[in-house]
Amino acid sequence: MNQTIETILQHRSIRKFTSEPINERQCHTILDCAIAASSSSFIQCVSIIRVTDHEKRLLLAQYAGGQEYVASAAEFFVFCADYNRHQQIYPEAKLGFSEQTLIGAVDAALMAQNSLLAAESLGLGGVYIGGLRNNPDNVSSLLSLPKHVLPLFGLCLGHPAQSPEIKPRLPRSLVVHENSYAPLNREILACYDQHVRKYYQHRSGGSKDMSWSEQISGTLNKEARPFMKQFIEGQGFSLK
Amino acid sequence: MNQTIETILQHRSIRKFTSEPINERQCHTILDCAIAASSSSFIQCVSIIRVTDHEKRLLLAQYAGGQEYVASAAEFFVFCADYNRHQQIYPEAKLGFSEQTLIGAVDAALMAQNSLLAAESLGLGGVYIGGLRNNPDNVSSLLSLPKHVLPLFGLCLGHPAQSPEIKPRLPRSLVVHENSYAPLNREILACYDQHVRKYYQHRSGGSKDMSWSEQISGTLNKEARPFMKQFIEGQGFSLK
Repeated sequence: MNQTIETILQHRSIRKFTSEPINERQCHTILDCAIAASSSSFIQCVSIIRVTDHEKRLLLAQYAGGQEYVASAAEFFVFCADYNRHQQIYPEAKLGFSEQTLIGAVDAALMAQNSLLAAESLGLGGVYIGGLRNNPDNVSSLLSLPKHVLPLFGLCLGHPAQSPEIKPRLPRSLVVHENSYAPLNREILACYDQHVRKYYQHRSGGSKDMSWSEQISGTLNKEARPFMKQFIEGQGFSLK
Repeated sequence: MNQTIETILQHRSIRKFTSEPINERQCHTILDCAIAASSSSFIQCVSIIRVTDHEKRLLLAQYAGGQEYVASAAEFFVFCADYNRHQQIYPEAKLGFSEQTLIGAVDAALMAQNSLLAAESLGLGGVYIGGLRNNPDNVSSLLSLPKHVLPLFGLCLGHPAQSPEIKPRLPRSLVVHENSYAPLNREILACYDQHVRKYYQHRSGGSKDMSWSEQISGTLNKEARPFMKQFIEGQGFSLK
């Protein structure tokens, strides 16, 4: 065990922050950590929009479905796949491939995880905001994102004003397969479901009674942001 | 500065490893670190295939375009977006949305970056292998990946047998935009291009003479794995 591993294993999403800002030096360190991540074929196809304008934060909080911590967090970053930069450099660039969308999403997340861990190692906390994809058109307009830039998710960072329990994850034996894909072990799943149910009961003081299987069934019972395909293609991604 | 930030900022990809294995306890810690990452809506749609079979490793190295370290690294993990697990639990799950592909790619990368950093913090090194997407059909067959599982990239880990220089990344002022997307600053780019040219000259002993702009132009001059769209859709992703 060392500080890095401890930071990683102690992760819990923070959604309540004190009003204390993150000092500019720490903020730059966090951003430099993002940039230090691996980049597929050195393509460096990620941009980060740091949103310091309070009016824009309020709108983003609303677009994300009323997540007020988007407005109240000390910092808010929007991670975007960005091939517009490449097109400015090389106007003949062949863009629009699904492969490039995957690279953009993967490389943005590698960078984001570096920033979150750097922040957590400094005693800060944060939470990813996938809810930006509720209103991707509005997010793009607000941040003046041109074609070939795809906003993927946000990251709130700040000084924690809460200390939630660590949420129990799927056990390693279900996530990790050896040499070939293994069908689900139902006994281990049942045990995990019970574990999640207890976690929710405890966290909610008894009012939430739900297993993981029940939770994901509720999520996958609905269409998943069916407007995203058109939005992604409209930004010039995943067309071919 | 602390150990976590130092680990992050000291990152360089390692492609030569000693023959020393990673002990099982460390390997489990690295995998547990992967699992501790944030998961979009707690959907937990990632599986990791740990490839310990040497014959499979040799084939994967070949599929990845002859990257022999895929075979020689102490450990090799394949990160996959996985909704097959959810379908086993809830056969009526609505799948095939582009949104779910993005979530899969992002969540897999968050997990992967946790594992790489955990490994690096232990004195190990590694490199991501996007080259698996050269032959995604072969990779899927070899690892028996069913529908709704999308292999995204691999990760080699082991004890470093090289100590390469840190590769210079785009400067913060080009990657980070404040409040709205800013067009490329050509002066800063020219300076960075010069920096990359010097890095390659130094690394290659004078034989490689290339700026970042030249490198990405060479990459984007070609179609980016144009077969990926069909493969992704064939696995049941990004259809709607």
